[in-house]
Amino acid sequence: MTFGTLAQTRLREIARCSLAGAGVTRLPFTAEHASALAHIRDWMTAAGLQVHMDAAATLVGRLEGPEGGKTLLIGSHQDSVPNGGRYDGIMGVVLACLALEKLKIDNVRLPFAVDVLAFADEEGVRFPTALLGPRTLAGTFDSAVLNLEDPEGVTVGAALAAFGADPTQLVGLARDPTDILCYLEAHIEQGPVLETRNSPLGVVTGICGIERNRIVFTGETGHAGTVPMADRRDALVAASRFIVAVSEIAKQTNSIRATVGEISVHPNAVNAIPDRAALPLEVRSTSDAARANFSAQMREIGAQIASESGLSFQMEQTYKQPAVNCDPTLAKTLASAVKQAGHPLVRLPSGATHDASAMSDLCPIAMLFVRCTRGLSHHPDEHARTEDMNAAVDAIAGFLVSLKTEGTT
Amino acid sequence: MTFGTLAQTRLREIARCSLAGAGVTRLPFTAEHASALAHIRDWMTAAGLQVHMDAAATLVGRLEGPEGGKTLLIGSHQDSVPNGGRYDGIMGVVLACLALEKLKIDNVRLPFAVDVLAFADEEGVRFPTALLGPRTLAGTFDSAVLNLEDPEGVTVGAALAAFGADPTQLVGLARDPTDILCYLEAHIEQGPVLETRNSPLGVVTGICGIERNRIVFTGETGHAGTVPMADRRDALVAASRFIVAVSEIAKQTNSIRATVGEISVHPNAVNAIPDRAALPLEVRSTSDAARANFSAQMREIGAQIASESGLSFQMEQTYKQPAVNCDPTLAKTLASAVKQAGHPLVRLPSGATHDASAMSDLCPIAMLFVRCTRGLSHHPDEHARTEDMNAAVDAIAGFLVSLKTEGTT
Repeated sequence: MTFGTLAQTRLREIARCSLAGAGVTRLPFTAEHASALAHIRDWMTAAGLQVHMDAAATLVGRLEGPEGGKTLLIGSHQDSVPNGGRYDGIMGVVLACLALEKLKIDNVRLPFAVDVLAFADEEGVRFPTALLGPRTLAGTFDSAVLNLEDPEGVTVGAALAAFGADPTQLVGLARDPTDILCYLEAHIEQGPVLETRNSPLGVVTGICGIERNRIVFTGETGHAGTVPMADRRDALVAASRFIVAVSEIAKQTNSIRATVGEISVHPNAVNAIPDRAALPLEVRSTSDAARANFSAQMREIGAQIASESGLSFQMEQTYKQPAVNCDPTLAKTLASAVKQAGHPLVRLPSGATHDASAMSDLCPIAMLFVRCTRGLSHHPDEHARTEDMNAAVDAIAGFLVSLKTEGTT
Repeated sequence: MTFGTLAQTRLREIARCSLAGAGVTRLPFTAEHASALAHIRDWMTAAGLQVHMDAAATLVGRLEGPEGGKTLLIGSHQDSVPNGGRYDGIMGVVLACLALEKLKIDNVRLPFAVDVLAFADEEGVRFPTALLGPRTLAGTFDSAVLNLEDPEGVTVGAALAAFGADPTQLVGLARDPTDILCYLEAHIEQGPVLETRNSPLGVVTGICGIERNRIVFTGETGHAGTVPMADRRDALVAASRFIVAVSEIAKQTNSIRATVGEISVHPNAVNAIPDRAALPLEVRSTSDAARANFSAQMREIGAQIASESGLSFQMEQTYKQPAVNCDPTLAKTLASAVKQAGHPLVRLPSGATHDASAMSDLCPIAMLFVRCTRGLSHHPDEHARTEDMNAAVDAIAGFLVSLKTEGTT
């Protein structure tokens, strides 16, 4: 039995810790969360770790290292979206445990301690907040979130307490950065790049920053039969030209992912020229400068399109989250481990946010992506191959050993 | 006092025959309709006409002509959309009455009889049908419509009977085409062309045919952060390219008005690539062949856009109404009358449907458009200038007199 087979079995088993319905539905601080922690505790124990749940309901499995040595953090989250898959998040916990189990079997002793972390809430589904676990470790936790409520009116603080965690102790969870070596997270890619490139693994260069802009074109309505084409100030035609430009200009870059996922028009009648088209423009990039340049360019183009047809154009930024860089030295070490395991090297950005985003406030981060079928995620059919997960266990173990080598030479 | 002033006064007065609220709300076979007919009866009487309401609740004012002569029909509709204006439809009835009043004052005797017609229902707001009056005259009336219901469950037949009309006599209203000279209708333009061309009046070349097509682009959804631009099959980007093409190609023609007035995307989330975009394409033209050519061209372009990005494209015609030509000889006579009244000649299509559309099944038709402010229609602020309506009375009277000349030479 390979570690990949073991990972697949464990993920199938823990997937049963779910509400009824298609796929996996496991929200934080619930009975499903509790039964999942029993599984994870077993995995950690099998890897020789000492297990405890902290005040943020993060399950921590510790492998002690040399006296006075640093600690490497590795993990991901246990929770899912509603009707999600059985890999997103939890696979990173399984692979971390298995990599340490492999090193234990191989009698490798690391020159640092390791904490495997199974964070409670990354998806932000139950509460209008997320990343409680990594934020407490990083010391960026805001106690105001304890009063945020789920749809049933239960606060984060009450849910934590009912789960057996102690919200009054959250501030004390902050780690001292000087004690921490780095944070490593393995996660399914949630995109098609590795499949396209025929590679089981990818080394993440950074986690994209995100901005969202609310865009409105305003023209003039009129009867679809009575206003000649040349006299029209059609807001949907202008918005369409803008959407085409967004796609074409983003395609010319390597660094930008830009999406218009919604659109609404007014008056929205089959025989009325639209006088208003509203749409959000989402822009992601691992380069905040490239992202800002792209948005500035689209603002100019939008204004130009509007002015050519006598419309007005508004563009307002509604959300911004800076990019997070993965540590270049760690990425290099991880890349070597992937190549040593016999796989082609694919470097790629993460378009989605992860626990690693919040952990970057504490320490250098590294991320390993595992290929997922058709890029499918947040879906009952989400899938990662057994052999790909086996490759990931090898790469993680290789990374830990390489860090050891670096630490001792 | 000019005839224009008289028209403005009468329209202001009859606008009070309305439900409460902004603008005019006068639905067929209602108390508002009945009180409007009292006004129209007065206008007809002032013009020397003999008045009766027929079985379709059309108010008919007859000016007798020579024994055995033909009858010219002239009119429009009395009803409005909810919160509509005070000109749409009813202005054509006022102007017809005033033109005949003018000829009476001028002691002109026409070599034909004239029936002024105030049709009950053109807007199709109360019942899911319209044009009962002209259809009964043309003999194209389908008795099945008598069973159609308004939102309160009252049928057309019951509403007619309660209004004092006799639905059993509708079939007998059909006119013998050999007895009819033509049908003339004056109407506000409901568009901006006359205002743009600085002309109070326009001679209508024809009434546009209309087709509607349901269009669906289907691609693939994905996470806005994880799918590279080059790998996307974004349905909204494809739909946007299509909408831009619709506008650009329609602008290159003189004969097509093409509009996308609605759009919906799926899954319609700010961070999800749209896998489906659905939109209606409405095409209008006075040339059915030009309309069909345009739609065929857009079908090819839509399929091309879809195939370039790996999407599928569907286009299904959901509605079709052929174009109606105005009679060229009558249009020429009307144009002469407009020019003789001292106004520049503007010839333009009607993009909207009118009572004349249904009357074209009975006899040759002519239409005169009157400039309206900002092309605004179906709105409380709908407006036609006093001097423009005065010009229209002159032109209609001139047209009637010209027809007389033609009839006697």
